[in-house]
Amino acid sequence: MSDRGLLTVISGFSGCGKGTVVGKLVDSYGYSLSISATTRNPRDGDVEGVHYFFITKEEFKDRIEKNGFLEWAEYVGNYYGTPKDYVETMLAQGKNVILEIEMQGGLKVKEQCPEAVLVFMVPPSAKELKSRLVNRGTEDMDTINRRIARASEEIDYINDYDYIVVNDDIGRCAGEIHNIITCEGKKVINNGELTERIKQDFKNI
Amino acid sequence: MSDRGLLTVISGFSGCGKGTVVGKLVDSYGYSLSISATTRNPRDGDVEGVHYFFITKEEFKDRIEKNGFLEWAEYVGNYYGTPKDYVETMLAQGKNVILEIEMQGGLKVKEQCPEAVLVFMVPPSAKELKSRLVNRGTEDMDTINRRIARASEEIDYINDYDYIVVNDDIGRCAGEIHNIITCEGKKVINNGELTERIKQDFKNI
Repeated sequence: MSDRGLLTVISGFSGCGKGTVVGKLVDSYGYSLSISATTRNPRDGDVEGVHYFFITKEEFKDRIEKNGFLEWAEYVGNYYGTPKDYVETMLAQGKNVILEIEMQGGLKVKEQCPEAVLVFMVPPSAKELKSRLVNRGTEDMDTINRRIARASEEIDYINDYDYIVVNDDIGRCAGEIHNIITCEGKKVINNGELTERIKQDFKNI
Repeated sequence: MSDRGLLTVISGFSGCGKGTVVGKLVDSYGYSLSISATTRNPRDGDVEGVHYFFITKEEFKDRIEKNGFLEWAEYVGNYYGTPKDYVETMLAQGKNVILEIEMQGGLKVKEQCPEAVLVFMVPPSAKELKSRLVNRGTEDMDTINRRIARASEEIDYINDYDYIVVNDDIGRCAGEIHNIITCEGKKVINNGELTERIKQDFKNI
């Protein structure tokens, strides 16, 4: 019923299963995923316009100047950002777009797009998160403990997010986020066409 | 997941099926309906504390003075209002409360309870509403036309409501409102206990 697509930001602690839930939202519910621009070099298997838009540092800085990003950040010497025009084009086509970004980025998006819906995903417990990270086996204990420490700092900003969802089951959590976005689509502010049609309809009867 | 119950106001054009949808929300989804206080005399079948709280004009005016109503109005010489303490007690018990009131009343409730969720129900079309009112056969054409005219005035205030739902099918519409209220229950502001528990959990690991 929405005039244009809705923009949803999904953030959450590293290891809480964000990527898998977002994948489910794309595959099972037809959401569009935004693609980031980056200045890092493509790695094996990286496809331009699928995994990233690869651009030069000069181009990236130029786009920052022109307010061309919904949010951007520098990480280990490279820039990463969400291209504003790319997201805007999809929204204008009526597509519901998901940005999977970290909390700081999410808050920057909200500044530029107050209508964006911010969803924060948490694991059932800190213990559960820790054991997931340990079982993943890709990081040493020092890194894992730093991630946990970072999570406990991030959680203080949760009040700036709109919704909180607990990921205790991938399918259930994806369904919950899909419901949230569907209901956001029933908001009066997202139904300008419908309300206008009803206004006219009642005035012309 | 909510700490306390949620307050939802349901308004909509006369004849759009509000009462039936609200009945479905109470019967099938377990919502609690608020009971109005009134100064009118009880009619046959009216049960105190079920259909209305019957009080005297003096008592009503006294409660107005003490800011004891979420909203109130005078109608054909009698007062009608939503008792604040009654609603507050139910919300504190974790019950999700529905107020079925007209738009003006809904906006007054929002002033006093900014966290209240305002849902506006519309019929599929003005023509459909008119034919429902005609088929009901309880009002003459003059009254029906006045109702339609009033609807077309009310619709201008729809932007002050949070959500708009189309009642093209009772069950579907009730399900849609139930989803909206469920998703509102996932808002961070409605999950103080959960976020506090997670904060502590991550700090203590």
